Amino acid sequence: MKFAVVGTGVIGSGWITRMLAHGHEVIATDPSEGAYERMLAQVKQNWPYAEEMGLAENASLDNLTFTPNLEEAVKEADHIQENVPEVEEIKDAVLKEIDFYAKADATIGSSTSGIMPTELQQNLSHPERLVVAHPFHPVYILPLVEIVGGEQTSEETIIKAEKIYEDIGMDVLHVRHEVEGHIADRLMEALWREALHIVNDGIATTEEVDKAFTHAAGLRYAQYGPFMTFHLAGGEGGMRHMLKQFGPALKKPWTKLVAPELTDDLYEKVVSGSEASSQGYTMSELDQKRNEFLIKVKKLAEEYWPEETAGMKKANQVL
Amino acid sequence: MKFAVVGTGVIGSGWITRMLAHGHEVIATDPSEGAYERMLAQVKQNWPYAEEMGLAENASLDNLTFTPNLEEAVKEADHIQENVPEVEEIKDAVLKEIDFYAKADATIGSSTSGIMPTELQQNLSHPERLVVAHPFHPVYILPLVEIVGGEQTSEETIIKAEKIYEDIGMDVLHVRHEVEGHIADRLMEALWREALHIVNDGIATTEEVDKAFTHAAGLRYAQYGPFMTFHLAGGEGGMRHMLKQFGPALKKPWTKLVAPELTDDLYEKVVSGSEASSQGYTMSELDQKRNEFLIKVKKLAEEYWPEETAGMKKANQVL
Repeated sequence: MKFAVVGTGVIGSGWITRMLAHGHEVIATDPSEGAYERMLAQVKQNWPYAEEMGLAENASLDNLTFTPNLEEAVKEADHIQENVPEVEEIKDAVLKEIDFYAKADATIGSSTSGIMPTELQQNLSHPERLVVAHPFHPVYILPLVEIVGGEQTSEETIIKAEKIYEDIGMDVLHVRHEVEGHIADRLMEALWREALHIVNDGIATTEEVDKAFTHAAGLRYAQYGPFMTFHLAGGEGGMRHMLKQFGPALKKPWTKLVAPELTDDLYEKVVSGSEASSQGYTMSELDQKRNEFLIKVKKLAEEYWPEETAGMKKANQVL
Repeated sequence: MKFAVVGTGVIGSGWITRMLAHGHEVIATDPSEGAYERMLAQVKQNWPYAEEMGLAENASLDNLTFTPNLEEAVKEADHIQENVPEVEEIKDAVLKEIDFYAKADATIGSSTSGIMPTELQQNLSHPERLVVAHPFHPVYILPLVEIVGGEQTSEETIIKAEKIYEDIGMDVLHVRHEVEGHIADRLMEALWREALHIVNDGIATTEEVDKAFTHAAGLRYAQYGPFMTFHLAGGEGGMRHMLKQFGPALKKPWTKLVAPELTDDLYEKVVSGSEASSQGYTMSELDQKRNEFLIKVKKLAEEYWPEETAGMKKANQVL
């Protein structure tokens, strides 16, 4: 498989690391000044974590090439991953260029976190081969990719894309309906808006909000999502009991209804709070700590995610 | 320390387990039919996990007694934990009774997840000794307790309560301003409402929503909360850069604005989805899997929570 990666910032470099780690060839492209050096430094920094996750037999940094020329990067690729800035005009222009130079049977995945595929594909000559393939930072560790087809995406492209991303070790979530922010980011955005309100209303600092989450619900959410969490909270009656008991709370004023205004005051509180939480660690040190932690918690979660264990259970029953 | 626990359901039994595990005497009370047997079965089921977390030297199930008589349970207790159903009339009546029979210098903690302490204390003769002390399920594993004082709560009570809960191995978050749902539950409720909307609008099933969360953001949230997560996503520029780039997204329609109506159709989707996710495991098996996982992920998170490591870093600098 020959991959092209268009746009080599944090997300692009994350994709490159993951593709290389799974033994593929990658051609990267980015027109901005110093992009090559920054990308290379980033990929080298990611590499030890990819090694810890387990490399494919033929995985090597030598399988990476870079060119500032988009045509050269995409013209022989089997799959092209687009990660340019989240601005519709830029995405549209770059995707049109990719579409023009790519092989007719190449597939295109856009990393967009918010734009819907029907919008992204409307000016392409081969719109049927575009999907949104939305990853999560750090891309080389977190397994989820949300795949979303637009109105013109072909069924064949969806099937090919699922295979491509599974082949680089990802857990594909096929989002069957287009919606702003797909699924995961909508959940995170809801959390984020409420967190901002709490700080904005002076109820708690950013550090307190983070602690309220990490020391309780956050520990649970690496294993069970919002639904399974409430299902378990219902005791023997599960979700059936839970909804009867706590359904009415949906009508209580437990969360703010609209996003808060990002005033200068809120901006300062959020920035200085986050900097204080960093306790003198550099961003790079915090990144390292996160990566070391994530690899371990991911391994742990894999053992305990119900579907994994169910898989093992089935396998055991076959034996 | 002599603890009394009033109300011995899932949360009450969780408190009892934690208090016993830390070597304290506990008198439990609950007037409902069969409460003693259910509580005892629950505490015995929790006990192996308490053992795995590490028991205090004098910890023993023998330090637990039960009486259906509230007066008897609370009259000699140093601290009373109230966990009766989340209905204001019931809470008010039981707290009034506790207040009447308790020693003058005993403190009272209410486990309420949503009611504000100023409301709970308004009919007590010693309102100054009541705090909300809101734990998270499973109480014997998750470390967070939110402590909230009401208008009449004394500073002395807050200080005593912090000491009491720290003494049973908890991480105290002193919530300095009363608000419905305190802090952690507001965050979870925001997530929950958006999750319900996604299912209600037919965008995804409960299983897909859970996967979207556990396989990406959920893995991160055991270590870094919403603010630190975005701080790290900003690269070298941290939160300052992040807010500039993504601040405008606050105005986009990424989340629904009001809670959805819990229609019969939504109810059925949520219940049957959660039951399907359980993949044939009983609630008790799911509980066990969660406990085993949580103990391990908690130990892992403790190593990697920034404040813990910062503490170690400081200690190392002193050396």
